[in-house]
Amino acid sequence: MRLEDEKKAAALAAVKRVRDGMVLGIGSGSTVAIFVEALASLVREKEVEVICVPTSYQSAILLASHGIPLTSLTEHPTLDLTVDGADEIDPNLNLIKGMGGALTQEKIVAASSKEMVVIADSSKLVEVLGVKTPIPVEVIPMAWKTVAEKLAKLGSKVELRHGSGKVGPVVTDNGNFILDAKFPRVDQPKTLEEKINNIPGVVENGLFVEMAKIAYVGQGKTLERKQF
Amino acid sequence: MRLEDEKKAAALAAVKRVRDGMVLGIGSGSTVAIFVEALASLVREKEVEVICVPTSYQSAILLASHGIPLTSLTEHPTLDLTVDGADEIDPNLNLIKGMGGALTQEKIVAASSKEMVVIADSSKLVEVLGVKTPIPVEVIPMAWKTVAEKLAKLGSKVELRHGSGKVGPVVTDNGNFILDAKFPRVDQPKTLEEKINNIPGVVENGLFVEMAKIAYVGQGKTLERKQF
Repeated sequence: MRLEDEKKAAALAAVKRVRDGMVLGIGSGSTVAIFVEALASLVREKEVEVICVPTSYQSAILLASHGIPLTSLTEHPTLDLTVDGADEIDPNLNLIKGMGGALTQEKIVAASSKEMVVIADSSKLVEVLGVKTPIPVEVIPMAWKTVAEKLAKLGSKVELRHGSGKVGPVVTDNGNFILDAKFPRVDQPKTLEEKINNIPGVVENGLFVEMAKIAYVGQGKTLERKQF
Repeated sequence: MRLEDEKKAAALAAVKRVRDGMVLGIGSGSTVAIFVEALASLVREKEVEVICVPTSYQSAILLASHGIPLTSLTEHPTLDLTVDGADEIDPNLNLIKGMGGALTQEKIVAASSKEMVVIADSSKLVEVLGVKTPIPVEVIPMAWKTVAEKLAKLGSKVELRHGSGKVGPVVTDNGNFILDAKFPRVDQPKTLEEKINNIPGVVENGLFVEMAKIAYVGQGKTLERKQF
């Protein structure tokens, strides 16, 4: 209940950054769903007109259900603002994302945005990335095992993600698999992000380094990345 | 005609490296097709038994048509030998691949192989990569334009690949698009390979650096990478 309140407070803080006419990137997950509810109120009350690039079928369906118009990076390759959640946030505003399986689209959209704002409850704050959460890695299905071996060599315990609703591994919105690579801790996120991306078969990984500008965390806590 | 003879000579040289019981990675393209024909003869005459991981629907269909058994990296994450073509080969045995659109699977398979052998005609030899050929980059469809902009910023002229048989862009065996990024020349292939792989939305790119061990080129020319 407390965490729900924190998510809501964070989402409402982010909504205040939305301006009329903006092209928005919309992340995925439960905190983003609260943000979209609040955004929908603004749009309904005609306070703003916006157009959005979703990062998953989840967020596309949610936006459409509120009548908020969708667009694409083909039409709008540069977005004004992206709002997304995170699974872990470190003091430098580096993130682990991807427990929702939409990390690839989330990173594409964040990288296409003038400003990425993170919204989360306080349980997502960590001193060092990776101590609690594995790094999700989206992989081309044929390569899941060879990539898993290479991630293990980098020092992680790797699991092929399973879910529910279908037998076998989870299949992403892009038709790929997800490996969850649990490292003891991630002291050099930039280096590790690049190393993982250079394993053949890796589509993208859940380390978001030097991408977020601001994080609204729970009730009243704001982190801002200085060297932006 | 001369080039066809050269392809055949290269393919036959590579076939001599095949040993009984090997698990092979099979590339894609016209030179590999000649290799598969020769491999099929060996198998038919019961000189060797092999099992193969294909890198495309093309090579899977071709192998199956010859009755050569297929396997996967899930069953065999380490391959004994991969034989593949190339679009450009530099004196250090670095490659540009991907004009056939199977670069991602080709790189996955090559990276899973104890030994990668390249077969090509002499028109594929270059002093410096990229002078003649663009670097193919496989991208998640939603990101084609934002990735194209970032490749342009790295100094290339970029085209979204079109083909025939369907309207619109070529769709790869993985369901993605291909951008062809033409650089004036590629002096630091390793650095560029890593830079491109770290653009969000890029699945893989056609620079194969420090992967090939031997190249059989045309009639009688063999390149071997020393620092292997």
